[in-house]
Amino acid sequence: MKKRIAVLPGDGIGKEVVKGAIEVLQAVAERFGHQFYFQYGKIGGEAIDAVGTPLPDETVELCKQSDAVLLGAVGGYKWDRQPVHLRPERGLLKIRKDLNLFANLRPTNYYPSLAESSPLRNEVIEGVDMVMVRELTGGLYFGKPSERTKKNGEDAVVDTLYYQRKEMERVIKLAFELAKTRKGKVTSVDKANVLESSRMWREVAEEVGKEYPEVVLEHMLVDNAAMQMIKKPKQFDVVVTENMFGDILSDEASVLTGSLGMLPSASLSQKGPYLYEPIHGSAPDIEGKNVANPIAMILSAAMMLRLSFGMNEEAEAVEQAVNQVLDAGYRTADIMSFGKKKVSTSEMVEEVKATL
Amino acid sequence: MKKRIAVLPGDGIGKEVVKGAIEVLQAVAERFGHQFYFQYGKIGGEAIDAVGTPLPDETVELCKQSDAVLLGAVGGYKWDRQPVHLRPERGLLKIRKDLNLFANLRPTNYYPSLAESSPLRNEVIEGVDMVMVRELTGGLYFGKPSERTKKNGEDAVVDTLYYQRKEMERVIKLAFELAKTRKGKVTSVDKANVLESSRMWREVAEEVGKEYPEVVLEHMLVDNAAMQMIKKPKQFDVVVTENMFGDILSDEASVLTGSLGMLPSASLSQKGPYLYEPIHGSAPDIEGKNVANPIAMILSAAMMLRLSFGMNEEAEAVEQAVNQVLDAGYRTADIMSFGKKKVSTSEMVEEVKATL
Ligand SMILES: CC(C)[C@H](C(=O)O)[C@@H](O)C(=O)O
Ligand SMILES: CC(C)[C@H](C(=O)O)[C@@H](O)C(=O)O
Repeated sequence: MKKRIAVLPGDGIGKEVVKGAIEVLQAVAERFGHQFYFQYGKIGGEAIDAVGTPLPDETVELCKQSDAVLLGAVGGYKWDRQPVHLRPERGLLKIRKDLNLFANLRPTNYYPSLAESSPLRNEVIEGVDMVMVRELTGGLYFGKPSERTKKNGEDAVVDTLYYQRKEMERVIKLAFELAKTRKGKVTSVDKANVLESSRMWREVAEEVGKEYPEVVLEHMLVDNAAMQMIKKPKQFDVVVTENMFGDILSDEASVLTGSLGMLPSASLSQKGPYLYEPIHGSAPDIEGKNVANPIAMILSAAMMLRLSFGMNEEAEAVEQAVNQVLDAGYRTADIMSFGKKKVSTSEMVEEVKATL
Repeated sequence: MKKRIAVLPGDGIGKEVVKGAIEVLQAVAERFGHQFYFQYGKIGGEAIDAVGTPLPDETVELCKQSDAVLLGAVGGYKWDRQPVHLRPERGLLKIRKDLNLFANLRPTNYYPSLAESSPLRNEVIEGVDMVMVRELTGGLYFGKPSERTKKNGEDAVVDTLYYQRKEMERVIKLAFELAKTRKGKVTSVDKANVLESSRMWREVAEEVGKEYPEVVLEHMLVDNAAMQMIKKPKQFDVVVTENMFGDILSDEASVLTGSLGMLPSASLSQKGPYLYEPIHGSAPDIEGKNVANPIAMILSAAMMLRLSFGMNEEAEAVEQAVNQVLDAGYRTADIMSFGKKKVSTSEMVEEVKATL
């Protein structure tokens, strides 16, 4: 197969891990007889420096003409004091909106070989296998007004949590579809005892749930979900929630298994292209040192092979290669533990390629 | 001293734990020569059943005429399907607003004797000692509009995150005052890379911080805070944040040390009366079984002694009694572990009284 892949390395370690993932993809192409065309675009701080905006139109165009998008990470100290519209993160928010990426998927898996790096006890996380589905283009992130105001001459401020019913429907449906292919359970997280938007969310979840009699639907309040995630993470299969709750809970979930540097994500739209990025950020403190863990980016590329290109065998080959390299004891600094073999970013990539 | 205490047992195990705390307070009164007058009011499901509203005016009046308020818990299966304005939680939200309880304080402490009940590794939680300060009367909880709407004939919904600058100021100030009496660090949590309200919050935190040169101020994004809370909870001293973030993070924090049934809280206003309640809910599944852990309620009463009545010695006496009873191996079911002595709610109360 021939595929066009838009590559947006971004800032910090984004560049390094993207480079590694592309090498792995090239190895996949060779082994399975595919042709991948990589075209590079700018986003984040790099784009601000080059053209004065965190997401230039040509990057958006490039993405729209591609079969899938690989994103490294954005952000860095350099742009921390910029006015809001000149912050790297704006590029991220805008590309989500421009490509209509309404659902962010983040799997969290238990890796026996990494259990020691988790802050949780092994018996709590052993066997954890869940996917967070976060609504990504609505809610507080994009609602208007979002501005300073006055009340009786005094300073005040307002942000708006706005959703259309159909925005809830599509992402909740996606969660049910996913649950069908997994353990058959959806946990819908809301704050229905306080928010009107959450009460609508719960209604929609009930309605959509009726179309999936084979999937168990459970509702959970967001504060309770924040507790259950630590107390009994094994109870979850697919968790679906709105944008801001999803931002908080998916980051909480990402540290459970001690493998933040290992976690991929996929952002889906109705028609594609989908976007794939690691969960970790740009980590400017270790930029350019060849020590970043490339596995999250490599596994994001594997998600791309499966979800965007339908290349299941290829995706599995990459995932298995990663597992074998971990089993063989290779570790980047972030997941290093006693008695293992410490490797650099590029060495880790070499190992994965060799195993492929 | 003579003190009037409004007692709102509420629903479920609320009744049982309040009864226990009052017995302990009576023991304190005897030992230290105080007079406590307890007057009972209805709130939550009990109030709905009795008078058709979750917070009757006479309960509010009673509270206003008292020196402090003790609240058990509200809610239960029975009222789960009621329309929103007839839900027990409405009583809770309304009393916060009616008494102007703008700051909710939740200490989370490490109990060596309970470390085994924590899902986290002992080395992660050993020595944790933090207080969450949550804004309690603003933000998404009370902003208008909060309603269904239409967009081009299609269903939509809106909630509003609204804050006045002075609402931010008073709670952030309180956090700094608290930090001065503790480890001297305030972590202000927001989502300044997305929300305008968070950008104002961060400005206000900076401004207030200037008045407290002896306190270190640090800003943290809410998603990162949800991670750090699990990864390195020891880094925190006082954490201050807005209402919804505080709801989520304080529940997350409450499971860190494995002692949910032990955690008290205080809700403060400008002039009093303050309200004290355990963090756990009404737990309808164990209602009336005499197995609930009364310690969170007893420690809430201790906070009342200290913060509302300035009775430091008395508060410490209660806290020490609780520690001694735990050290002696007494445990209610929720914190039971191998080799300890399992006791009922009333037996635990007896032990604390006897130790006092
Ligand atoms: C950088 C930030 C705007 C972004 C978000 O809040 O969505 C990030 O935290 C994420 O989760 O991808
Ligand atoms: C019951 C509910 C409305 C309440 C809240 O969200 O504030 C509770 O979760 C709490 O934290 O006291």
